[in-house]
Amino acid sequence: MNEVRVFAPNTISNVGCGYDVLGFPLEGLGDEVLVSRRNDSSLVIKEITGADLPINTEKNVATVAIQALLNALDENKGFNISIKKSIPPGSGLGSSACSSVGAVYAVNELLNKPFSRKELVPFAMEGERSSSGQAHADNVAPSMLGGFTIIRSYNPLDIFTIPFPEELLTVVIYPKVEVKTEYAKKILPTEISLKDGIQQWGNMAGLISGLMSNDFDRIGRSLTDSVAVPVRKKLIPHYDEVEEAAMKNRAIGFTISGSGPTTFAFANDSETAEKIRSSCHSVYEKNGIEVLSFVSKINTQGAHIL
Amino acid sequence: MNEVRVFAPNTISNVGCGYDVLGFPLEGLGDEVLVSRRNDSSLVIKEITGADLPINTEKNVATVAIQALLNALDENKGFNISIKKSIPPGSGLGSSACSSVGAVYAVNELLNKPFSRKELVPFAMEGERSSSGQAHADNVAPSMLGGFTIIRSYNPLDIFTIPFPEELLTVVIYPKVEVKTEYAKKILPTEISLKDGIQQWGNMAGLISGLMSNDFDRIGRSLTDSVAVPVRKKLIPHYDEVEEAAMKNRAIGFTISGSGPTTFAFANDSETAEKIRSSCHSVYEKNGIEVLSFVSKINTQGAHIL
Repeated sequence: MNEVRVFAPNTISNVGCGYDVLGFPLEGLGDEVLVSRRNDSSLVIKEITGADLPINTEKNVATVAIQALLNALDENKGFNISIKKSIPPGSGLGSSACSSVGAVYAVNELLNKPFSRKELVPFAMEGERSSSGQAHADNVAPSMLGGFTIIRSYNPLDIFTIPFPEELLTVVIYPKVEVKTEYAKKILPTEISLKDGIQQWGNMAGLISGLMSNDFDRIGRSLTDSVAVPVRKKLIPHYDEVEEAAMKNRAIGFTISGSGPTTFAFANDSETAEKIRSSCHSVYEKNGIEVLSFVSKINTQGAHIL
Repeated sequence: MNEVRVFAPNTISNVGCGYDVLGFPLEGLGDEVLVSRRNDSSLVIKEITGADLPINTEKNVATVAIQALLNALDENKGFNISIKKSIPPGSGLGSSACSSVGAVYAVNELLNKPFSRKELVPFAMEGERSSSGQAHADNVAPSMLGGFTIIRSYNPLDIFTIPFPEELLTVVIYPKVEVKTEYAKKILPTEISLKDGIQQWGNMAGLISGLMSNDFDRIGRSLTDSVAVPVRKKLIPHYDEVEEAAMKNRAIGFTISGSGPTTFAFANDSETAEKIRSSCHSVYEKNGIEVLSFVSKINTQGAHIL
């Protein structure tokens, strides 16, 4: 095999009370990464479509991630990389993570799988470090593994997936305004009250047990965040209005995806999901803001060869 | 029915990362509360054995809890109450909660069950408020309901139980030194770093999913606390030594019960549990500290009539 084309899904991270800890991938939305062998030992980005991103291999997340993988193997091989991006960075849908994940997954295939999926996560995290300054895993891990993913600990890295209700649908609302992840990080408090903390881990206990026991009411009651959402929702135009539209149309819950501006709602049947989608979409349309909205299941496949 | 004798189990609360949110009851250890009707409308504490506690009905947690129940019903009935306490207050095993729970459960029976178990919890919480100044639910709820219990939210009160591995055993180590709950609360920080918070809800996700999927390793990795244990372990004599003894003997995890001085370990077979118990017990014995230690399953029955 000299060439491989990989799909890596976009992801929703944080998921209410799960700041920096939870994430899941979407279906049908993600980056395509084409990687082929070279005869020399260089990494070359041939083309990036769908977003204006650096082709400098020391700055592009995909090549930074590949280089981390090659360093771990002490390999000197070279590759050409082409990336077809689904969504530009700053959407809150883990755009940079898709490219890093697709790139290391593809190179691992071309090298005859020296690493398992889980073992590839830290290399993709190096891509995240290069783009945001922090090696977050809450987008790369779910994009790589598929399924509802928990990053219990970063040091040591402890990542696993949990069962969730098959019927669970995600309504994604992406208004095309940019929220810089870096800025969205900067406005977060570095300290929280113990009281807010207790609420947060209480909700985490509710969300995880709700997902694992198919209790949609409990999932909904638990999908709140005492830490990031109260601050970040101010960066998202019409947040309260969109939330109200979703909840009025019987969403199970509603919150921010990643650091925004994308928001999402959970629903448990496709008719309700479609009503939520169209009512939230309308809020932005009425206000003259370009918006992408769709309904997706939670992707269980993760990165895969096309 | 003019008289009823109720057993309400002692409990372990907090459970590592679950400060103020998690708790479970033990088997074979708890208060016996005997309640009988009176012809007048007064509450009278006839006898308390096993601990030196106020028989003043405005100060005793049992009668405070009963009064809260009677107020909710606008009832004027009177009762005699006798309490046989298993363990004195200040043990970290929810001693006051047992009495409140037993008392309201018994009165509810004598009144032909106007309330469900869950509905009784807020009355028992009033007992907690009178003894500690805060209406905590993390001891009363598990003692009342039985099983591994989550208090997701206090306002509104949202309480439920989750499945856990049948083989799970708790090794309880109670050194007979008093730790005042009030003081153990006072030394806690009112603010925590966001970093510690992320660790805490990451561990909560790990603990709940580990319990619900019978993953003992994950339960063990998640049974840590970034908030209370680092401060409170200093109030518990020989904490590090006891922890070391437990972990050396293959405990799944080890932490403080409630606000201490009781500690506990999880194990998944009785032979291992007995080794852990005897090695932890020895640490205190060697140091001339009186200690009660035993192995218990998680009680699934909660309060019940004897």
